[in-house]
Amino acid sequence: MPARKAAATGPHVLRQMNVAAVLAVLRDDASTAAGVSAVAAATGLSRPAVTRALAELKDRGLVEFTAAGGARQPGRPAQYARFRAEAGHVAGIDIGPHKVLVMIADLAGRVVTARDSAVDSGATGPQVFDIVRGALTAAAAEAGVPLSGLWAVSAGTPGVVDRDRGEVLLAPSIPGWAGLPAVSMLREWLHCPVSIENDVNFAVLGERWRGAAADAVAEGGSDSLVFVQWGRRIGTGIFINGSPYRGSSAAAGELGFIDLVRDPDAPAGPRPADGTGPFERLVGAAAIHRLALEAGAPTGDEDDIAPLFEAAAAGDPVAVAVVDRVATRFARGLAALLLVLDPGRVVIGGGVSRAGEVLLEPVRRQLRLHTLVPVTVQASVLGEQAVAYGAVRHALDAAEERMTAG
Amino acid sequence: MPARKAAATGPHVLRQMNVAAVLAVLRDDASTAAGVSAVAAATGLSRPAVTRALAELKDRGLVEFTAAGGARQPGRPAQYARFRAEAGHVAGIDIGPHKVLVMIADLAGRVVTARDSAVDSGATGPQVFDIVRGALTAAAAEAGVPLSGLWAVSAGTPGVVDRDRGEVLLAPSIPGWAGLPAVSMLREWLHCPVSIENDVNFAVLGERWRGAAADAVAEGGSDSLVFVQWGRRIGTGIFINGSPYRGSSAAAGELGFIDLVRDPDAPAGPRPADGTGPFERLVGAAAIHRLALEAGAPTGDEDDIAPLFEAAAAGDPVAVAVVDRVATRFARGLAALLLVLDPGRVVIGGGVSRAGEVLLEPVRRQLRLHTLVPVTVQASVLGEQAVAYGAVRHALDAAEERMTAG
Repeated sequence: MPARKAAATGPHVLRQMNVAAVLAVLRDDASTAAGVSAVAAATGLSRPAVTRALAELKDRGLVEFTAAGGARQPGRPAQYARFRAEAGHVAGIDIGPHKVLVMIADLAGRVVTARDSAVDSGATGPQVFDIVRGALTAAAAEAGVPLSGLWAVSAGTPGVVDRDRGEVLLAPSIPGWAGLPAVSMLREWLHCPVSIENDVNFAVLGERWRGAAADAVAEGGSDSLVFVQWGRRIGTGIFINGSPYRGSSAAAGELGFIDLVRDPDAPAGPRPADGTGPFERLVGAAAIHRLALEAGAPTGDEDDIAPLFEAAAAGDPVAVAVVDRVATRFARGLAALLLVLDPGRVVIGGGVSRAGEVLLEPVRRQLRLHTLVPVTVQASVLGEQAVAYGAVRHALDAAEERMTAG
Repeated sequence: MPARKAAATGPHVLRQMNVAAVLAVLRDDASTAAGVSAVAAATGLSRPAVTRALAELKDRGLVEFTAAGGARQPGRPAQYARFRAEAGHVAGIDIGPHKVLVMIADLAGRVVTARDSAVDSGATGPQVFDIVRGALTAAAAEAGVPLSGLWAVSAGTPGVVDRDRGEVLLAPSIPGWAGLPAVSMLREWLHCPVSIENDVNFAVLGERWRGAAADAVAEGGSDSLVFVQWGRRIGTGIFINGSPYRGSSAAAGELGFIDLVRDPDAPAGPRPADGTGPFERLVGAAAIHRLALEAGAPTGDEDDIAPLFEAAAAGDPVAVAVVDRVATRFARGLAALLLVLDPGRVVIGGGVSRAGEVLLEPVRRQLRLHTLVPVTVQASVLGEQAVAYGAVRHALDAAEERMTAG
């Protein structure tokens, strides 16, 4: 009942809202300073209200005044306010089975450092945690930011994450990572808000902010988006009407478990021990590798399917046939998701998506036969940096509270 | 950027929000009158602010004062405010190929009249419109409400609806109904806000308000819900986090078009002329009728499948086997939707759902094998009245604007 909320509105809340509005205008173009009149025009607030809000932001170190900018009249220097994006920093971290990527950004979201650290296969949870701590320390030093200058830290990781308790419940790809109280360990060390989230949910945030969907969002188009992580496993991150959508049990977007294979009159069978879903077994990286081997198309070792797509791009007819088969299977499953969600836009990331247009083009062609309305299908722009970018965006939202709270 | 909105907040907006908050409290229990102190406590507003809001609502005819209620002190009668739910009415209409159902409710949402009118098969659009007009006139007379006393009218109808333009774009089940400017015709006649919407989108609204999901919503549980209309066609209405979800092209929830049958390596074929989708052809009412016939299980004429479910409920082994097969097929497709949306709750309506537990029980059993998290599956409580109830709820929301606008 939104009406009730009105009762909480008072002068204090209004002042805070004015501060947030002024901050939003200054941050929109953090590289230039703005005069009081310009801020008043952009916010619709009165000049005195803008002046009060700017004074409060200056007290908090978030705004500084300069006399530079426009033409000055003698004796009365014009005042220009600039957002001090350097007043604080945030960190976004991608914690994966093979690497830890730490990004540090200022309060305007400008990434000042990105640092990759390798994770040995078979590393335990505590070892991964040590790598995270080392990488964060080194990245902060590189950025010239003391650890106490971090206003918020967010980390994405594969597996099932309990965001409220800050725990990784299940992470088959990193032994010993599940159950480790990583968030509380980071909080005790850093003394700032720390969050952990499933990595694909951060990847969709990243692509929406700085990646494949950024233009569409900036242009004010539909703000729904599905990010499909297509590797050995298949997962999705969903944005609906500008907000992340996780479902009532945080289990939305489980495309990998849709069953297109079994005879529809056959009851479901037992689940395999590796925890994979029917669609992952049909068209995940391992299945693609197997299809290529069976057809005698070029492949690399283990799950390396890059040679298949290179050969298809070069016109090898056997490779082209395998890629068409992969696209046909993938489009059928993706169509089920699109028929349910009608998101308007899909970004495909993960290892398989590195194949690019040689794979996406036949996927689009098949999708048109299965769906009822148009959908834009793009490859990830951020690639391996998508999760870290999304984590930075998430940390910026957490820092926002500290910026606007009165 | 919600911060910008702050700039639009002023004394006038605040006053309106206070009026809305007071109205919400009084409407919550429209049958009893409340004192100023009680309203102040419930809203968090000051007594003078409540008194001002009540005076404004009295001027608009939405509140009346009584001296009855609690203990009175001599010389100074306590003032009790009562919401005048009878100050206006709304109508919700279900326009279908076989019937038109008109419901009239007061501003507190109490249904005062429900009136069913038969539609002859083969009726044209203009004939259906005449039936709607006649039924609305008769229902209003029965309720003792002049047509000018209708504050808003909402209608649900099968097919593809352009809500913004108020037009039915496609309605295969009602010849001549598509393209008729029904909304503008109703507006010219009634001089009040008129809306039209796809019927399943209203059915989900109805079940959420007064039907299968009402308790869960009242208890503050997850407010996501999928309503599946299971008849000859299969459609869904989706509620996510308390709001209707239609997708970026108003094409979300097209469960009927998910393809579980074709070999996943086979490309999609041409679409059939009847416009049905693969899942509808697999498990819609006509497919169930055919399965029963082939198995030699009891059936009625044409699409009448009630005898099949009656026989299964009575233990007929052939009928039980057919129903199990239907449940197995249906659960597989529904699982795809649940894996994507994780709504937590599904309400099954439409003609097939009248089978009840003899069908839903095996559906639940199969679903558990395909899904990863629990989901509550219920039969529609409102049945054939779900769409009209949802239309009433929608019309009440439209009337709300007139109640709170300054």
